[in-house]
Amino acid sequence: MDVPAQDRRESAGRRGGRAEAEMTGPMPSTDPTPAERAAPGDRDAYRAFRSIQTRWMDNDIFGHMNNVVHYSLFDTAVNGWLVEAGVLDLAAGTQVGLVVETGCRYFGEMAFPDVVTAGLRVARTGTSSVRYEVGLFRNDETRASAEGFFVHVYVDRATRRPAPLSPALRAALAALAV
Amino acid sequence: MDVPAQDRRESAGRRGGRAEAEMTGPMPSTDPTPAERAAPGDRDAYRAFRSIQTRWMDNDIFGHMNNVVHYSLFDTAVNGWLVEAGVLDLAAGTQVGLVVETGCRYFGEMAFPDVVTAGLRVARTGTSSVRYEVGLFRNDETRASAEGFFVHVYVDRATRRPAPLSPALRAALAALAV
Amino acid sequence: MDVPAQDRRESAGRRGGRAEAEMTGPMPSTDPTPAERAAPGDRDAYRAFRSIQTRWMDNDIFGHMNNVVHYSLFDTAVNGWLVEAGVLDLAAGTQVGLVVETGCRYFGEMAFPDVVTAGLRVARTGTSSVRYEVGLFRNDETRASAEGFFVHVYVDRATRRPAPLSPALRAALAALAV
Amino acid sequence: MDVPAQDRRESAGRRGGRAEAEMTGPMPSTDPTPAERAAPGDRDAYRAFRSIQTRWMDNDIFGHMNNVVHYSLFDTAVNGWLVEAGVLDLAAGTQVGLVVETGCRYFGEMAFPDVVTAGLRVARTGTSSVRYEVGLFRNDETRASAEGFFVHVYVDRATRRPAPLSPALRAALAALAV
Repeated sequence: MDVPAQDRRESAGRRGGRAEAEMTGPMPSTDPTPAERAAPGDRDAYRAFRSIQTRWMDNDIFGHMNNVVHYSLFDTAVNGWLVEAGVLDLAAGTQVGLVVETGCRYFGEMAFPDVVTAGLRVARTGTSSVRYEVGLFRNDETRASAEGFFVHVYVDRATRRPAPLSPALRAALAALAV
Repeated sequence: MDVPAQDRRESAGRRGGRAEAEMTGPMPSTDPTPAERAAPGDRDAYRAFRSIQTRWMDNDIFGHMNNVVHYSLFDTAVNGWLVEAGVLDLAAGTQVGLVVETGCRYFGEMAFPDVVTAGLRVARTGTSSVRYEVGLFRNDETRASAEGFFVHVYVDRATRRPAPLSPALRAALAALAV
Repeated sequence: MDVPAQDRRESAGRRGGRAEAEMTGPMPSTDPTPAERAAPGDRDAYRAFRSIQTRWMDNDIFGHMNNVVHYSLFDTAVNGWLVEAGVLDLAAGTQVGLVVETGCRYFGEMAFPDVVTAGLRVARTGTSSVRYEVGLFRNDETRASAEGFFVHVYVDRATRRPAPLSPALRAALAALAV
Repeated sequence: MDVPAQDRRESAGRRGGRAEAEMTGPMPSTDPTPAERAAPGDRDAYRAFRSIQTRWMDNDIFGHMNNVVHYSLFDTAVNGWLVEAGVLDLAAGTQVGLVVETGCRYFGEMAFPDVVTAGLRVARTGTSSVRYEVGLFRNDETRASAEGFFVHVYVDRATRRPAPLSPALRAALAALAV
């Protein structure tokens, strides 16, 4: 990537059209200034970290990690952290977190055989939902190569009806809150 | 998914916090009303369609298509359309479209062995960038199970510097414009 | 691929060593002759067919479908056929087919945006096991670009103990037998 | 998996039929005895090791790592080792290793969030080909959960004609030879 800021703005900045409004809600009437947007975060903007080895298949025909793979790393980092914290039981848990929205901004290329460090934080918790944000850092770099988010709504595994976050989950998430 | 509207709003609606602002730019000072957001689009909101067979591996432990797979279908639908239109030459093309931002909203579950129809449209073209939007329709359904977007910035394959959309590409994209 | 026969023989033919014996059982004391091996099959060697769209991510850095993807297509073709035949219930089935061995030979390259036709046959059924064989045909080609197999042992979903093939499954598989 | 030996034999042992012969060459006229086959190897049967974090998406609907993923780990382990040894240059190398045959035996289930250690060895090198064998070890286990192989035929990147292994590659591979 390493796309100059003005090109990023061109591609992502305007966004006032109808289609955008459909996708992410009403947009502000004035454009963000360059300083307000698109700057990748540093590691200290995150609360926990997990290391993930890239795989051969992550590289696409252009020789870099395909944009889809980032989302797989988000899932892996967050769910791995939740399992380790004892609040995600894949086999027997009565609640599951359904993903209702995801997004990612790409600031620089990564590629196999890089090792990616995923930084985690929780931006918001609601009654039955959590917004996780993840930064992906290439090898020893301190600025994120990509930053994304996903929103979980917790539901009962059988009925698929939203269910309040369990006290244990809420307590665990506090460690990731920003 | 099939998460009731009020829960969707809870999970996605507020979004006024600092972290969100970092991710997608300044947010409006007032919440969107329910009517303004989150309604999945119909097929007639898209301009071209491609059919993609789900795969066994698309299903995760919860028995539905994992949220990551949707992005693979976006890439497949758009790039397949571009190849067929004669404006994407994977081997010899001098420009490549780098992905700088992606996003997706999930409205309903899909699962192997569903056949997914991807609807395509172009929401915006800039000097060197394109915003593609894709709706994913489960089997014969007319309302989207998910809607997403990705923004391509076209760059020279060797230098990775942004390059203006070729006239041929621009002409082809006109057929997808909304 | 399109690797000349003598090179294929060199790479795969000898195979008399210790390691090979560990992997696939005792090997014959004499080499197979060229005529005995490595010729890709035609469509008429298979009993049922399923069409699968390749995906952008299937291509690796060399611009062809990565060797791993073939196995995903095997699973997709066989399990899709089983679901359609009414003998594989992903959610409620009491038996699951565990994969105990897989293999594939690659005769020619395939690549996105090819459409792959998977040909299916059953080479052997035991008390609780099935050997499926799958040929992958690129677009309209009649000779396989790859041929592989996988062996399912059916087990009780809860206990993971082998269970005899159900009469319904056995009847369905008869249609694929060669 | 953990399928009892007699069931493994049933599923994989006979293998004297026509279809099998087509797939892997002539088979011996007598069945292997139980002692001769199917025992998973230990770590000391391998020469180099690489650690790979499983991912959320690796688990399929049955809650274990899908059989396809093993092959992705094989590629990752071997190519990662080759890059580190300085004998695989993804961008500028003039030779590429095309995969002409792969196979895997599955002895036990693995699942996210396991960490997999891949053990590597080279079973045979020819003029232009290499047979790599890989054992996958779950977390701290010493017996392989799966063992597989793949055969590379090295070709000129442009012409796709077989090319002799470079002296540097041949020297590096000696460290993995068994």
